[in-house]
Amino acid sequence: MPIGMVFAEKGGVFGMETMGRHVIAELWNCPEEKLNDMQSIERIMVNAALEAGAEVREVAFHKFAPQGVSGVVIISESHLTIHSFPEHGYASIDVYTCGDRIDPNVAADYITKALSAGRLEAIEVPRGVGPIQLDDVRVRGFETNVL
Amino acid sequence: MPIGMVFAEKGGVFGMETMGRHVIAELWNCPEEKLNDMQSIERIMVNAALEAGAEVREVAFHKFAPQGVSGVVIISESHLTIHSFPEHGYASIDVYTCGDRIDPNVAADYITKALSAGRLEAIEVPRGVGPIQLDDVRVRGFETNVL
Repeated sequence: MPIGMVFAEKGGVFGMETMGRHVIAELWNCPEEKLNDMQSIERIMVNAALEAGAEVREVAFHKFAPQGVSGVVIISESHLTIHSFPEHGYASIDVYTCGDRIDPNVAADYITKALSAGRLEAIEVPRGVGPIQLDDVRVRGFETNVL
Repeated sequence: MPIGMVFAEKGGVFGMETMGRHVIAELWNCPEEKLNDMQSIERIMVNAALEAGAEVREVAFHKFAPQGVSGVVIISESHLTIHSFPEHGYASIDVYTCGDRIDPNVAADYITKALSAGRLEAIEVPRGVGPIQLDDVRVRGFETNVL
């Protein structure tokens, strides 16, 4: 990609192209059967990417024995990943989007609803803009009935 | 997985199985040609996983036009991802490992060296242990000639 805009921040000059938003989401109290259905999880993750306006490039999922699913959707704008622990009602989600066109929280919230999570805890980490400052990390958490 | 040990932390009881360490690493000043060689990057990411003692399950990589590579290695213990921006000498890395058997920093440092990054900025986020507390996020950054 040619360098478009550049901006100076925290003592460096970075291209707008490297700027990204990375949402790290912890989903708790999900129904066990939803977290063990690989086909459904794959569909949810792809739909979450599309819902946010991302372009899907590669999809790879893996079902563990006796339970649990891991998977990734590579999008033009970076990636979405999931690791599910059905026996704990827990799913670990990442939604990382480059640029400022897409809001990764749209995908994270879609997944939260689709997996019927009872609770979402999330942080948003800025990527590609130099040293990560914890002051820039946004924390978000709620019971999902407010979604 | 059957529930083995459980531990109480931050007001909740979580299974040891959900506990993970997620290293978010920003690599700067990498040689442009290294960041545009998909086959080499794929080999580096797989070797990084193996070096850390992880078990590789799925591999998916994508080469963008005119440049840039995105890819993921799904491991039994979670995942490694990379997004490269050759024109900025920047690679965005994630190494997420469940359990306490594997140190994700081993893989992150392997990738940093293999891509000849001039600078590494990293944070380590605890996963799967309840609400993410920023106090628990470990920050690490250095010029890579100290590696």
